[in-house]
Amino acid sequence: MTAPVNHQFKLARRPVGMVQRSDFEYAEAPIPQPGDGEVLVKILYLSLDPAMRGWMNEGKSYIPPVGIGEVMRAGAVGRVVTSNDPTIAVGDHVVGVLGVQEYAVAKPKQLTKVDPRRAPLPVYLGTLGMPGMTAYFGLLDVGQPKEGDTVVVSGAAGAVGQVVGQIAKIKGCRVVGIAGGPDKCDYLRSIGFDAAIDYKHEDVKAALRQHCPKGVDVYFDNVGGDILDAVLTQLAMHARIVICGAISQYNEAKMKGPSNYMSLLVNRARMQGMVVFDYASRYGEAAREMAGWMAKGQLKSREDVVEGLETFPDTLLKLFKGENTGKLVLKVADS
Amino acid sequence: MTAPVNHQFKLARRPVGMVQRSDFEYAEAPIPQPGDGEVLVKILYLSLDPAMRGWMNEGKSYIPPVGIGEVMRAGAVGRVVTSNDPTIAVGDHVVGVLGVQEYAVAKPKQLTKVDPRRAPLPVYLGTLGMPGMTAYFGLLDVGQPKEGDTVVVSGAAGAVGQVVGQIAKIKGCRVVGIAGGPDKCDYLRSIGFDAAIDYKHEDVKAALRQHCPKGVDVYFDNVGGDILDAVLTQLAMHARIVICGAISQYNEAKMKGPSNYMSLLVNRARMQGMVVFDYASRYGEAAREMAGWMAKGQLKSREDVVEGLETFPDTLLKLFKGENTGKLVLKVADS
Repeated sequence: MTAPVNHQFKLARRPVGMVQRSDFEYAEAPIPQPGDGEVLVKILYLSLDPAMRGWMNEGKSYIPPVGIGEVMRAGAVGRVVTSNDPTIAVGDHVVGVLGVQEYAVAKPKQLTKVDPRRAPLPVYLGTLGMPGMTAYFGLLDVGQPKEGDTVVVSGAAGAVGQVVGQIAKIKGCRVVGIAGGPDKCDYLRSIGFDAAIDYKHEDVKAALRQHCPKGVDVYFDNVGGDILDAVLTQLAMHARIVICGAISQYNEAKMKGPSNYMSLLVNRARMQGMVVFDYASRYGEAAREMAGWMAKGQLKSREDVVEGLETFPDTLLKLFKGENTGKLVLKVADS
Repeated sequence: MTAPVNHQFKLARRPVGMVQRSDFEYAEAPIPQPGDGEVLVKILYLSLDPAMRGWMNEGKSYIPPVGIGEVMRAGAVGRVVTSNDPTIAVGDHVVGVLGVQEYAVAKPKQLTKVDPRRAPLPVYLGTLGMPGMTAYFGLLDVGQPKEGDTVVVSGAAGAVGQVVGQIAKIKGCRVVGIAGGPDKCDYLRSIGFDAAIDYKHEDVKAALRQHCPKGVDVYFDNVGGDILDAVLTQLAMHARIVICGAISQYNEAKMKGPSNYMSLLVNRARMQGMVVFDYASRYGEAAREMAGWMAKGQLKSREDVVEGLETFPDTLLKLFKGENTGKLVLKVADS
């Protein structure tokens, strides 16, 4: 009988261009022992996020990069299997930034308890997790949609985009999603988007003109690149652009800037960046409101669950190739 | 004896890339006769502005383009020589959008009276005119500087930039100007800028790091291009970028977008466009405050006056080559 081990993916080197399997090292380590006031979490699901690409780069950002040889950073939901802290019990389910591995030691303040009876565990990595919080605060605080506004969201069938569009509908907006392929567009229409644009098969600028006859009041951008440039040509006066991500550019050697940015001047519009962590003190408020919308059927949540820690590099690539619909989650263990 | 004529420059064709002399036609027309309720203005000074390049292009903008064969649009200050309106007297001095010509007919509502005893006439095309209004509202309303903030302005020795920097100083900010050449930089320091960066001879990014050790809180952008990209790398958290112009790009076949725009996300910053006309109802308030600052010596104004209507195309090129210091004005007549 062999001793149980902790399988993990470490960052082996900084990627150049598109992430490759060889940028990660699959490794084994002993299962870590929690110290006083710590707990051991068995990871059940890992969150795969576009932001992970940025964490792999050297240099200043909103969070330090993952070091070479360190376990790759990832959000996760898991079950507490050992507890040396009175506030968390064995059997509790928790979310936190636990890394791409099977087991992690954490302090209670790094964890949030979740209830698997209220929502399936993967939802806590998506609509009721960071992507949902990002959608909620990015749209409502930065985008400031008003009833009757036209809201456009790119990466619309992704973890953040699907929530942005549905919240905008709840707030009385006309909602147009941009996504890649007919299946994703069908999905968007099925959850209530007024229109969906398939950027792989349509002229985005022409489709925006058709679906946004009064111009775009709020644009929630997850992708950057050519789609950002296309939306810039269709802004309404005083439009607000929320810069949440630029997944089309993360694996490029050189970022493409929005060459139509002078549309901000012509339309007295603004473009503003956001990082969800700034809203940490209000996560509870947002999660309660969103859980209420989910209970009433106004907010639906889709997850794309792939099984097996060992598939991590390939599954991460799915994200950058745009192959997931809904929140991409890696299942590590059953329970 | 020949009858007096009205010399004028008409738009002959839409420029491709850099403006050329042949994009304009020098023409003669009879001096127009004012109708009922109209006045005839003899133009004394014409305002040459970066925005003129945009007015020469086809297509949607904040104002319709100048038509082919039409007199080129320009702001001007002049003297009323015939009046068929009781509210304006012969001998009054007025500003308005009167075109690149010697005489223009206008209605009183298109004109604003100015007082040559309070300030030299060219100042009404600069610091007390549209450029001054642009600086005032762009900086204060859109940039929202707070005391102690670091404010950076590009095109700093131009009509708008010189005013932006001095107002920022009045508001208690640290002010860094970016301009081309040592003479312009000397001028900026002479009017109170804390530092000046000569983009033609310095590494702008390194100089910004040196002169803005706490990062850039407000960036007032008149130039776009590489300088905008350099400033984006040096933003402070929650920075505000005012998009007022992009003179480095107006004569380019394809605009260069700011490839470092994701710094908006990292720094939770915003980039916002402005058009001065939106503040028309508050021009009076701003002009009174600025005239007060000028009277106290807190706000200095420099104009670069070139003589002779016939030099118009070459003088306009001075602007796009960055050869003017202060507001560029074309003198058409003595009185």
